[in-house]
Amino acid sequence: MEAFSDGVFAFAMTLLVLGLRDPTIGSTNSLFQGLLGEWPAFLAFGISFTTILVMWMNHHNLFTYIWRIDGPFMLLNGLLLLSATLIPFTTSLVSDHLLSADSGTAAQVYSGTFLFVALAWNLLWQYVIRHPGVLASTVSRDEIARTTRQFIFGPTLYIVSFVAAFFSGIVSLAIVLVVLAIYAYYAAITTIGRRTTESI
Amino acid sequence: MEAFSDGVFAFAMTLLVLGLRDPTIGSTNSLFQGLLGEWPAFLAFGISFTTILVMWMNHHNLFTYIWRIDGPFMLLNGLLLLSATLIPFTTSLVSDHLLSADSGTAAQVYSGTFLFVALAWNLLWQYVIRHPGVLASTVSRDEIARTTRQFIFGPTLYIVSFVAAFFSGIVSLAIVLVVLAIYAYYAAITTIGRRTTESI
Amino acid sequence: MEAFSDGVFAFAMTLLVLGLRDPTIGSTNSLFQGLLGEWPAFLAFGISFTTILVMWMNHHNLFTYIWRIDGPFMLLNGLLLLSATLIPFTTSLVSDHLLSADSGTAAQVYSGTFLFVALAWNLLWQYVIRHPGVLASTVSRDEIARTTRQFIFGPTLYIVSFVAAFFSGIVSLAIVLVVLAIYAYYAAITTIGRRTTESI
Amino acid sequence: MEAFSDGVFAFAMTLLVLGLRDPTIGSTNSLFQGLLGEWPAFLAFGISFTTILVMWMNHHNLFTYIWRIDGPFMLLNGLLLLSATLIPFTTSLVSDHLLSADSGTAAQVYSGTFLFVALAWNLLWQYVIRHPGVLASTVSRDEIARTTRQFIFGPTLYIVSFVAAFFSGIVSLAIVLVVLAIYAYYAAITTIGRRTTESI
Repeated sequence: MEAFSDGVFAFAMTLLVLGLRDPTIGSTNSLFQGLLGEWPAFLAFGISFTTILVMWMNHHNLFTYIWRIDGPFMLLNGLLLLSATLIPFTTSLVSDHLLSADSGTAAQVYSGTFLFVALAWNLLWQYVIRHPGVLASTVSRDEIARTTRQFIFGPTLYIVSFVAAFFSGIVSLAIVLVVLAIYAYYAAITTIGRRTTESI
Repeated sequence: MEAFSDGVFAFAMTLLVLGLRDPTIGSTNSLFQGLLGEWPAFLAFGISFTTILVMWMNHHNLFTYIWRIDGPFMLLNGLLLLSATLIPFTTSLVSDHLLSADSGTAAQVYSGTFLFVALAWNLLWQYVIRHPGVLASTVSRDEIARTTRQFIFGPTLYIVSFVAAFFSGIVSLAIVLVVLAIYAYYAAITTIGRRTTESI
Repeated sequence: MEAFSDGVFAFAMTLLVLGLRDPTIGSTNSLFQGLLGEWPAFLAFGISFTTILVMWMNHHNLFTYIWRIDGPFMLLNGLLLLSATLIPFTTSLVSDHLLSADSGTAAQVYSGTFLFVALAWNLLWQYVIRHPGVLASTVSRDEIARTTRQFIFGPTLYIVSFVAAFFSGIVSLAIVLVVLAIYAYYAAITTIGRRTTESI
Repeated sequence: MEAFSDGVFAFAMTLLVLGLRDPTIGSTNSLFQGLLGEWPAFLAFGISFTTILVMWMNHHNLFTYIWRIDGPFMLLNGLLLLSATLIPFTTSLVSDHLLSADSGTAAQVYSGTFLFVALAWNLLWQYVIRHPGVLASTVSRDEIARTTRQFIFGPTLYIVSFVAAFFSGIVSLAIVLVVLAIYAYYAAITTIGRRTTESI
């Protein structure tokens, strides 16, 4: 189950590279000028890659709270994977349109996908905490409350980013980047150190 | 063996995203109009993704009935994987043609692939129950009969969907969606809860 | 190590689907006519998919003969993976050119890739049997001789297929198909039944 | 964690094949002439594939030095994976431009990516040796010093290759190839033999 989810996350991250394209095709620019002009594609690649990386770290942390996996959990986890799989598509949209007249729409679709991802996280988490057979009994009320707060934080800021996209695509992207930085910092400090297989 | 099959299912699910394409290429529509007009692609993406997800859940359930894997089992399992690998191709066909004059053909190919998938499941299952060394001895006659019925249900409805495609591509797709909903509900209630690696 | 190789095999198999393309793009044919005319693509997809599947089965069988993996083994195994990774490329070449004037060249490249794969197998196997620390001591002389014969059979027939491609691309493809059928049969009967993780 | 990194390396290696393209599209050359003219693509494919393979071998060797994985380690490991994921993109750039006027830029981007990869390795390693809880206590000062030297060697030579690209793309590529040969030789002799799962 975890291995399968890991596979989808790893694969979605690697597929992002297909959104980077040779800028000289159908253009008279030199390769150098073309690559400079493609900065939105590199920025979006970095944001999306790191977001999926942090999702994967959170996914592992989530599993330390799980005692038993059942059918509805698998389907809700599948919804989370579906939302993650959309990221390479919306990343290439924002890459190609951030500097065009469609900048706002592209940024709305991009932050909208992250909003979808964040809502899928909340659905999965709400299912877990309402089913004692799924949630490990060792998890304290405090841990549940803290994690619930952490999961509500995401959709809130992605709504801000979504609304901001009506005014400026670049501002919307900047907000997504800030959310990512906060989550990455949080994941870095809360991830519990684990012994490696080699050293056990 | 299970890990290898999991890998193919996970890759096939993630590759579906390549069927979603920037709608403004070769078009004068705005990005927003283009994405609205691409609804068959999003619908087909969702159906195909969830179908492979449910296949993967059933694949895991199947393995609880298996005692020993042998060569013919591996080849028949390979046929199942081959059928699943075709899904990203036929999904992009139905995405691109559902609203065109070729709607019927596209829906026939799409439901035909699911029919192929369902037949591969039946071949694999029939092989399993005819080989006592492969089937776990703990599986009761009742469980075998119930699972056999469950596997026959799929091809029957996919034939209906295939025939319906001669009249309307959208009706055919709707039937595929109904089959998926039934299988997803069934997978959700029958999947046996499993303890996670973390909690063992 | 095995998991990594499994990943590359599974991924190469799934990537084959990208060689199947919508036949109506840049054509006035109906979808139905187009798909019929694309039969070489479906044939090549099936051959390549099954060849990698059988490679994967043989790879697992090989590992039952291995006691210890070292650096040169990993590099030679990497050469085998490199040859397998080329298959989606040469499959799409033969799909697109089997019915054109370049049919011979395409079939040479296709059977040439399989020849490369078969030579990589032989290199890996020769390394294994010349290094007692790598080969498991439980493997008998008879088993070594039998496996060596099995590995020499492949390149021999692929050379025949390669030469045949100078006369007819389709005949060359037919020989590749026959080799595959022999190997698949052989893999089916020699694969040792293994208990699944579930039932242990 | 290792499995997830393995997945990204395996996917990135396999995705390289998408950089090999049918040379007859948009050209009047025969397939044979086209493939001959595509030699930079095959050369770059081989270099990139083997570089990621050696990275993967080194990644496994690194894990024998690790006692405990924590959050910052995961993020720095993610940076390494991000750099590896860029390789299929820069490989296709160098494939398409090595013989054009943009040869220098393409080779700078290509060796620049390997420089990025090598710097990510050094960052990860420096983090490991500065955190006793992460580094296994069994690793001697000598081993640390030797590995540190090995990791500094990479960026140094990639800077040479990057600078050489201002004069000649092909010379730059040749230097990358030499670095790879040295690392592959080193990985082959230092990889500690491991027993396989089968034989345990």
